Amino acid sequence: MNITPNVEACLKESGIQEGLLLCNAMHITASVFINDDERGLHQDFEKWLERLAPEKTHSQYDHNRTGEDNADAHLKRTIMGREVVVAVTNGRLDFGPWEQIFYGEFDGKRRKRVLVKIIGD
Amino acid sequence: MNITPNVEACLKESGIQEGLLLCNAMHITASVFINDDERGLHQDFEKWLERLAPEKTHSQYDHNRTGEDNADAHLKRTIMGREVVVAVTNGRLDFGPWEQIFYGEFDGKRRKRVLVKIIGD
Amino acid sequence: MNITPNVEACLKESGIQEGLLLCNAMHITASVFINDDERGLHQDFEKWLERLAPEKTHSQYDHNRTGEDNADAHLKRTIMGREVVVAVTNGRLDFGPWEQIFYGEFDGKRRKRVLVKIIGD
Repeated sequence: MNITPNVEACLKESGIQEGLLLCNAMHITASVFINDDERGLHQDFEKWLERLAPEKTHSQYDHNRTGEDNADAHLKRTIMGREVVVAVTNGRLDFGPWEQIFYGEFDGKRRKRVLVKIIGD
Repeated sequence: MNITPNVEACLKESGIQEGLLLCNAMHITASVFINDDERGLHQDFEKWLERLAPEKTHSQYDHNRTGEDNADAHLKRTIMGREVVVAVTNGRLDFGPWEQIFYGEFDGKRRKRVLVKIIGD
Repeated sequence: MNITPNVEACLKESGIQEGLLLCNAMHITASVFINDDERGLHQDFEKWLERLAPEKTHSQYDHNRTGEDNADAHLKRTIMGREVVVAVTNGRLDFGPWEQIFYGEFDGKRRKRVLVKIIGD
């Protein structure tokens, strides 16, 4: 899910021209990350994360003995990262040519929540 | 090791109400990361990191030819991350429901050192 | 490529004494990361990333159907990270004993671009 427009709206509302913007997932099975907005690449991410941290068998993870079945989602989010910090210059996100901000949820059952915090002048 | 209380104490001492807090490991074989405070999950992290970046054999890593035996710890820390940046709102860490800050040391022989830097008003 | 001297030059030019410094790659197949300046370790990183996210076969990645052949570079950069945030104290990068900032490019065909943003007083 590309959340760049939402983050830009927060920045505009803040009126901040120069500073740093933090955007982080508030769930520990979710990620905020920056990459290319290309569908094939996102499918590659999903397959790759499933290879590095397979969901099944559920019983291979100690965390799942607590009644959860989402240990793999915690590992996947660790690879993808919790947060991004972006420079704000002239009131805009100071991005390279293909940078876009995405929210990725690896558990799938949670309500999505993102925090945006901006400091500067 | 859950360092959330230590970080909160630093924040309180700073008196900062609105801003950003950086917390990073000062050793390059250690991590500061945010996740759930659940013992089973932490065991899952350890097993998973050992699978992705096994300690042995030591001789598989060029870094270990320098007299070190901790190349795997550098790789593990890369997965887990060096630092976290957390929003400060109303003088408190602005966390999602289960977010806690942890220090993880993957070499095991070093004195633990963490840096906390807070900016804002 | 060790970019610590370049980042230090930006910091000196800014005149900022206390604050936070963000340094990020502007390409989504590149990383800015902090680790040890040891050649063997860097070779270990390269071999390890190739094991976790192999370049070939190119056809295993959906992204490469768009005419690209660098899907693996996107995955490798995700492991290594896009950005670092470093504390600035007394006008200097507040580093642990072996911390150095590196730029890593996993595609190899792009011009290198890094953004440095510093806030504080």
